[in-house]
Amino acid sequence: MTKSPEEEHPVKAFGWAARDSSGHLSPFNFSRRETGDEDVRLKVLYCGICHTDLHNIKNEWGFSLFPMVPGHEIAGEVTEVGSKVRKVKVGDKVGVGCMVGACHSCESCANDLENYCPKVIPTYTSINTDGTITYGGYSDHMVANERYIVRFPDSMPLDAAAPLLCAGITVYSPLKYFELAEQGKHVGIVGLGGLGHVAVKFAKAFGAKVTVISTSPSKKTEALEHLGADSFLNSRDPDQLQGAMGTLDGIIDTVSTVHPILPLLGLLKSKGKLVLVGVPNKPLELPVISLIMGRKTVSGSSIGGMKETQEMIDFAAKHNITADIEVISMDYVNTAMERLAKADVRYRFVIDIANTLAATKP
Amino acid sequence: MTKSPEEEHPVKAFGWAARDSSGHLSPFNFSRRETGDEDVRLKVLYCGICHTDLHNIKNEWGFSLFPMVPGHEIAGEVTEVGSKVRKVKVGDKVGVGCMVGACHSCESCANDLENYCPKVIPTYTSINTDGTITYGGYSDHMVANERYIVRFPDSMPLDAAAPLLCAGITVYSPLKYFELAEQGKHVGIVGLGGLGHVAVKFAKAFGAKVTVISTSPSKKTEALEHLGADSFLNSRDPDQLQGAMGTLDGIIDTVSTVHPILPLLGLLKSKGKLVLVGVPNKPLELPVISLIMGRKTVSGSSIGGMKETQEMIDFAAKHNITADIEVISMDYVNTAMERLAKADVRYRFVIDIANTLAATKP
Repeated sequence: MTKSPEEEHPVKAFGWAARDSSGHLSPFNFSRRETGDEDVRLKVLYCGICHTDLHNIKNEWGFSLFPMVPGHEIAGEVTEVGSKVRKVKVGDKVGVGCMVGACHSCESCANDLENYCPKVIPTYTSINTDGTITYGGYSDHMVANERYIVRFPDSMPLDAAAPLLCAGITVYSPLKYFELAEQGKHVGIVGLGGLGHVAVKFAKAFGAKVTVISTSPSKKTEALEHLGADSFLNSRDPDQLQGAMGTLDGIIDTVSTVHPILPLLGLLKSKGKLVLVGVPNKPLELPVISLIMGRKTVSGSSIGGMKETQEMIDFAAKHNITADIEVISMDYVNTAMERLAKADVRYRFVIDIANTLAATKP
Repeated sequence: MTKSPEEEHPVKAFGWAARDSSGHLSPFNFSRRETGDEDVRLKVLYCGICHTDLHNIKNEWGFSLFPMVPGHEIAGEVTEVGSKVRKVKVGDKVGVGCMVGACHSCESCANDLENYCPKVIPTYTSINTDGTITYGGYSDHMVANERYIVRFPDSMPLDAAAPLLCAGITVYSPLKYFELAEQGKHVGIVGLGGLGHVAVKFAKAFGAKVTVISTSPSKKTEALEHLGADSFLNSRDPDQLQGAMGTLDGIIDTVSTVHPILPLLGLLKSKGKLVLVGVPNKPLELPVISLIMGRKTVSGSSIGGMKETQEMIDFAAKHNITADIEVISMDYVNTAMERLAKADVRYRFVIDIANTLAATKP
């Protein structure tokens, strides 16, 4: 007989979990494994709320496992390390992002791209190598193989840095891979939410000229004055789009609902690259002639490998890049999810786990 | 008042034209310009029938101009050169492909990519710089700026080489640009028609491993034994597709009807590239998650610049690559179009202009 989540591992743990696709989160007793030779155990201090968490607690993509402790933007402090761990020591500030395992023998893993390993193990709502469900960062502590541990420089505020582990690497990696992270490149960022606002910051730090493209003209001031974008396009204004045709080297499209990409392809120069990082629940329309007439490209990109995630954190620290956040207490999480569904957050909720989780213990 | 096609230029010309979107072709008297300083005049010997010709005579893409003399796979012999022409001399074997002009001042033109110039002038059914309609190669002679003239090595049979000027460069250019023209790469070719059969030949000559993907299992023998492909996949057989998941570095998709690309994306490795060179008349469905989970790319590609077109012809000559053709007489062209609409040709019709056009003069 399968053991209950509370008994299957030797170390007691406490967090908040969704029990079914209603998505309602509530206190949850479970357990985690002992610290293995290559493992790092950390006390969770902060955990960001990613839009993926909202999709998953409601099983909108159809592969959710319950009970589910969400959270893959986890920042904390090392409390214990295995005998073979060399990367960090007790007391170090560290993070865990979107994955906690992979096969480590395929071509992707060999190239530090665990994120594209066919056997990648997501941080939560996945099955670990021991057959148990993985549980995420809405919890008091976490344990992971050191390969999946990211070091935070002392200078970084952990609450505002936590979202970089998903939102940050999701936009940093394609900016680099698709050669948009370069001085003088003109980059469009579609959607000014959790991903988009960080994408603007990274693209600017790389020296690119940045145009924010949004359906909300109300975001213009925010984009230009607060985030430092160079220009703003209202994607519902045909005249504005027409005036910017053929001007962009690449676009990072963070929108996760069904939307037309024809206008975006029109904004690209010849050889321009549209990179989709949001996951709409239905296929988009692909206007082939627009691709052909300018040798244009539509690609997808999913987070980044662990080596690049560390590189991203170090780059962010050097350039003072963090997410703009609203810190909340654990018991506010269900309200936060409702607000997130309405895009009512500027730009990322981060749960103050260390100071507010324990008080919710029944 | 606008002059008639027969009177607008000083040099008389004769060909076959469609008068309206019925697409019916018939004898047509028109005229061409005098040989300018940078112009090359050629006697047309052969002209291939491209699927684009069929789309255009029926105005299926909506931008046809009538009367229309189709034809952009033109091979012939130089009869006159302007005073500044250095590239060729009278008697040389030459060709004209899909375009006869561009702005020559934009970034694309500066990079020898006239094909992506916003002001590119297609060889027929376009407006030339003097305001007159351009007429293609279903005609007795042709005149074009030397930039748009391609030299054929003496060793090439002009009838079978003519289709390379469109079908050849359309597949050669993306194989090179998307880094598939390399020893050891595994390349899929979707559709075994005019473009596809030449794509197999080029990919093999580049040293790639080639898999032909087709809805017609009857083409397996042809693909493997005649064209030298390494393997064949019936794209309607889920088991065959499943067995080849994640094996291809790239795919050149030559299909110009609406078709699902989800199975093709599944065949690609991580970072794999699907290149569309056919133009369906409706958008395709783009399954975003399939792009994201492997950082995959869907691109388009349109012929190639003149420099690369010459490079392609020289490469083809060196590797004995030509199209498999059925040579027809001019008065067979309407029947040929009907057969082409049913894909009843192996693999390209080529009109023997020199020996059969004159006899159709009323």
